[in-house]
Amino acid sequence: MLVVMKNGATDAQIQAVIAEIHKMGYRGVSMPGAQRTAVCIIGNQHPVDGSILLAMEGVKETITVTKPFKLVSRETRPESTIIQVGEVRIGADEPVMMAGPCAVESEEQALTIARFLKSCGVKIYRGGAYKPRTSPYSFQGLGIKGLQILEKVRQETGLLIVTEATDSDNLEEVEKYADIVQIGARNMQNYSLLRLAGRVSKPVLLKRGFAATIDELLMAAEYIITEGNSRVILCERGIRTFSDNTRNTLDLAAIPAIKELSHLPVIVDPSHAAGRRDFVIPLAKGAIAAGADGLIVEVHHDPAHALSDGAQSLYPKQFEQLMNDVSRLKSYLD
Amino acid sequence: MLVVMKNGATDAQIQAVIAEIHKMGYRGVSMPGAQRTAVCIIGNQHPVDGSILLAMEGVKETITVTKPFKLVSRETRPESTIIQVGEVRIGADEPVMMAGPCAVESEEQALTIARFLKSCGVKIYRGGAYKPRTSPYSFQGLGIKGLQILEKVRQETGLLIVTEATDSDNLEEVEKYADIVQIGARNMQNYSLLRLAGRVSKPVLLKRGFAATIDELLMAAEYIITEGNSRVILCERGIRTFSDNTRNTLDLAAIPAIKELSHLPVIVDPSHAAGRRDFVIPLAKGAIAAGADGLIVEVHHDPAHALSDGAQSLYPKQFEQLMNDVSRLKSYLD
Amino acid sequence: MLVVMKNGATDAQIQAVIAEIHKMGYRGVSMPGAQRTAVCIIGNQHPVDGSILLAMEGVKETITVTKPFKLVSRETRPESTIIQVGEVRIGADEPVMMAGPCAVESEEQALTIARFLKSCGVKIYRGGAYKPRTSPYSFQGLGIKGLQILEKVRQETGLLIVTEATDSDNLEEVEKYADIVQIGARNMQNYSLLRLAGRVSKPVLLKRGFAATIDELLMAAEYIITEGNSRVILCERGIRTFSDNTRNTLDLAAIPAIKELSHLPVIVDPSHAAGRRDFVIPLAKGAIAAGADGLIVEVHHDPAHALSDGAQSLYPKQFEQLMNDVSRLKSYLD
Amino acid sequence: MLVVMKNGATDAQIQAVIAEIHKMGYRGVSMPGAQRTAVCIIGNQHPVDGSILLAMEGVKETITVTKPFKLVSRETRPESTIIQVGEVRIGADEPVMMAGPCAVESEEQALTIARFLKSCGVKIYRGGAYKPRTSPYSFQGLGIKGLQILEKVRQETGLLIVTEATDSDNLEEVEKYADIVQIGARNMQNYSLLRLAGRVSKPVLLKRGFAATIDELLMAAEYIITEGNSRVILCERGIRTFSDNTRNTLDLAAIPAIKELSHLPVIVDPSHAAGRRDFVIPLAKGAIAAGADGLIVEVHHDPAHALSDGAQSLYPKQFEQLMNDVSRLKSYLD
Repeated sequence: MLVVMKNGATDAQIQAVIAEIHKMGYRGVSMPGAQRTAVCIIGNQHPVDGSILLAMEGVKETITVTKPFKLVSRETRPESTIIQVGEVRIGADEPVMMAGPCAVESEEQALTIARFLKSCGVKIYRGGAYKPRTSPYSFQGLGIKGLQILEKVRQETGLLIVTEATDSDNLEEVEKYADIVQIGARNMQNYSLLRLAGRVSKPVLLKRGFAATIDELLMAAEYIITEGNSRVILCERGIRTFSDNTRNTLDLAAIPAIKELSHLPVIVDPSHAAGRRDFVIPLAKGAIAAGADGLIVEVHHDPAHALSDGAQSLYPKQFEQLMNDVSRLKSYLD
Repeated sequence: MLVVMKNGATDAQIQAVIAEIHKMGYRGVSMPGAQRTAVCIIGNQHPVDGSILLAMEGVKETITVTKPFKLVSRETRPESTIIQVGEVRIGADEPVMMAGPCAVESEEQALTIARFLKSCGVKIYRGGAYKPRTSPYSFQGLGIKGLQILEKVRQETGLLIVTEATDSDNLEEVEKYADIVQIGARNMQNYSLLRLAGRVSKPVLLKRGFAATIDELLMAAEYIITEGNSRVILCERGIRTFSDNTRNTLDLAAIPAIKELSHLPVIVDPSHAAGRRDFVIPLAKGAIAAGADGLIVEVHHDPAHALSDGAQSLYPKQFEQLMNDVSRLKSYLD
Repeated sequence: MLVVMKNGATDAQIQAVIAEIHKMGYRGVSMPGAQRTAVCIIGNQHPVDGSILLAMEGVKETITVTKPFKLVSRETRPESTIIQVGEVRIGADEPVMMAGPCAVESEEQALTIARFLKSCGVKIYRGGAYKPRTSPYSFQGLGIKGLQILEKVRQETGLLIVTEATDSDNLEEVEKYADIVQIGARNMQNYSLLRLAGRVSKPVLLKRGFAATIDELLMAAEYIITEGNSRVILCERGIRTFSDNTRNTLDLAAIPAIKELSHLPVIVDPSHAAGRRDFVIPLAKGAIAAGADGLIVEVHHDPAHALSDGAQSLYPKQFEQLMNDVSRLKSYLD
Repeated sequence: MLVVMKNGATDAQIQAVIAEIHKMGYRGVSMPGAQRTAVCIIGNQHPVDGSILLAMEGVKETITVTKPFKLVSRETRPESTIIQVGEVRIGADEPVMMAGPCAVESEEQALTIARFLKSCGVKIYRGGAYKPRTSPYSFQGLGIKGLQILEKVRQETGLLIVTEATDSDNLEEVEKYADIVQIGARNMQNYSLLRLAGRVSKPVLLKRGFAATIDELLMAAEYIITEGNSRVILCERGIRTFSDNTRNTLDLAAIPAIKELSHLPVIVDPSHAAGRRDFVIPLAKGAIAAGADGLIVEVHHDPAHALSDGAQSLYPKQFEQLMNDVSRLKSYLD
């Protein structure tokens, strides 16, 4: 950390800062410049909380040099983490496809879509039993019944299941039924839930909050890992911006940014980024070409009658095209 | 709702849309324009979910005319809601001051600040026992011990207490100790927690998420009210933007916007908006002048050693000045 | 356009709105709903300016149904526009590469890079002679001398030249020397310059302003085309958001959004979006896979000593890799 | 400037950075930390361009300590600048009101509004003769005829005139007719126009671009002042964010932020921030209470028939109320 002194800070003020740093257990070194002096903190093993210093007389600002996360950091673990779920390896060479309806609506709906996806070569099935919805009047998911339907999907098709837990109550149930537990964007800073997710026996798919920085996403993952569960898959799903041609703006650079800072795998959700069916495929292809470790895509056999997110769900024919595109891109990537 | 057809949509497509609207229980009326046709939906008592229509052949887009919230809406209840807590009336003519440290750190700290605030004329004391922190390595609050300290503050000073619940576990405890239960910005879309907050016996202070629209904030309040607790106080605390001179950008227009759309009172948190002490007073005064029903402000007797948010906590002297400013502004507002 | 009346608007108010619409030369049809009435405007050939209606008694809001642009619209011209410059066809099947230094710094620098790019198969050379810089103390470009150097580049290498005009004075010179005239992001709403660009004899590369919506970008292109120059190439170069891992956030969905709304070609500038060299290639590949008609990329033989944008300029080796990647992606796209 | 080395940077790389800094004419001092080394640059009188360093082997990032502006900086000139126009002093104790229609539409319209404003005690009249409009099909202003009407307004009422120049051609005319030359938000980074505005004999009202940071606004003012015109008034008019309850989000903290960083006066435009009439007064009052040096407000005697921005123009009665509010706030501010 660098403590920047105000123009005209006195020697006494600078010495007081250095003394305070000493009390914190570090060493402070004064760096006089042409216009002002800065004090460098040396010897810290962990990030320093600069608020004490910031409040001292003569201090203009503090500048943090080191990132505040540790366990998720590529500096801590240089090699990329591969997360194995059944026979699927997430973060390895081949991008992984997760697909399915936004919400589980009925056994028939879930199975119809699952059989189709299986026939396309998909290995991981997505579908929500607990749905966080902006309006209390919208469909909130089938709950435990939805999980039981997902169990049937797994038994009949052999597909692995990723499904969302929205609170500590349903997390326990979701852990039982899911192969991958999803923590949604709206819960990315629900730290109680993150801590609990750090104690489940399944990998966690952690979605980026729509207004979270990459640093905050990585800190959220750090919450999970500090509790003992290091199998975290990150997911970029679009951020909130002024741009109004899509529901969210896919932050494509999150892929290389996460890969630079962290060893964890990162997948992309083009469906929630786009919010409209016709842009899902271009975004999906862009994500794969930019280096994403996989995609999570909404597909529905009858989007017109989907109980949620119908407008962004791909038709089966479109999904077949996407699978074909991704498979060709994979060969390009080899 | 208005269903806009594509340029060149066929009559059959338009008729299919009208038939689908009929199936939904409403009436669809075709409105041919120079370039394209739109279909108006008539007879709906509630907002219509347009995703089915959006997915139909020939449909370009759907446009929602009516807001999706009901119980929070000023159309439902034209007169402004006043929330009485002890002898304090929030949403009445006089702006209400809530103040205190970011976090309860010790009995001595909490009481020192409380006595000072009481002497300034403050009626409601803020202070966190459960702190949602971006980093798992930051101070997370004293928990139940913090609540017990707040109890002592109430007993000794008579100040009312507002403090945050961060999950379903601590909500029960917070309800016992607090006069007002706070739901923080990061939990604004934690719908499980909102539902539980809708069942507590105390008023709820609901903070706007830093990337939430006003509609989303009102929908979050709707979650609470649908469960039976209609005593909700809304709080604008800054939104995330590109502007980097403050931690968040105070959305001053949220005050008149909320007052137009809803009957609920709205207060402002200038401390979290600013993120730095020296901007808190200008923002606070601006908020009062723009019509806020109150303020919630961070104050610390020794910010340099605060365990969280020290940089944005007012010094006691500054807070005295703010109280003086607000009191003069109040007389101006009469 | 739809005029939404307030809850409780009187019949007289509704009739007054209809009468006003009649005065404007259109027809207004009242659509009574369960909660409120809307009035549809019928018969307009052009977008209607609703501000008069918005100001009338009893009116809640106006909702625009039709987009405000015409000449750039795909509804006006369904087939995609291909812009031919020399032997290069922009907007045709094959993505087009434009590359070069941020600024022309010297004849030696410009030619060194140009020879290298030519050897890589690049056909269009970029390089600024007039540089819009945030600081008046930064290097502002070589001006006319820079244009003369670009002329030498064209003569020696046969590369086509794209270079920026920043005001009406230098536009005339730029028109003489350039094969494509660039209008930069900061000038996207400099309407005087846009009108002048509409009268030049060369195609115009129009960059999206970093806070412009797609509609605003298309309106800016409309300014150029209304003056007679229909050869406009649009360029997505990243937008300003809260996300801080890149200088700007590449809005990948701008590619399908523009292609849906307009017949004009769209290229992507990954260098300005990323603001850092190591993210340029992932963004560039993502853009091509998502359907961009080309790329404009900053390359420098010695970025460490570039006079501007050194940090985001690719090394020659990196650019070779990018050309290879794009060429493989092209074959995938066939 | 601080040059942060990568974890594991070699001694040779660090020495190379120090050598490069030496070549730039400064001194580099190595600061070894627990995890990584940083190199401080000492002895620079001006901001350092770090791009050369950023591109060197082993360098992770560069951190700028000193702001890039000089002449606008309060460090350069600690006392606040007061700009005298006629008898009006902008930046002195009393907030200054500028008001008038968005655009000059006719002599009758301009004079009707001017007489009303004069009767309210306004001293400065705003009104556009050259209008930058998003659409080429919208009313673009009366041009020179508009300026002549403004001349009549001045002659008849004695009001001072502020009006916008949109390009180098009309700047000359505007300089002749205006008492204050306005540079609009869309031209805030039109550096050619800024330089020319730096040579006019009148004060300049410089509006913040809707996606510009405070630093960028101050750099734009620096462009004007470097050319010799130090009479610059800054104007906050709302920024582009995701928040959709207003056209732009008024950045209230821009007022204290500008006052901290710069000696220049800052006024607020609540009309363009709100984009809707009913929010203008709350925003205006908030701005005055937060310390703005004045307001610029749109008023129209018949907003329903205004040729531009009708929806955000105050009715005369509303403006009278605002003048009354501001006058009472002034007495509060004493």
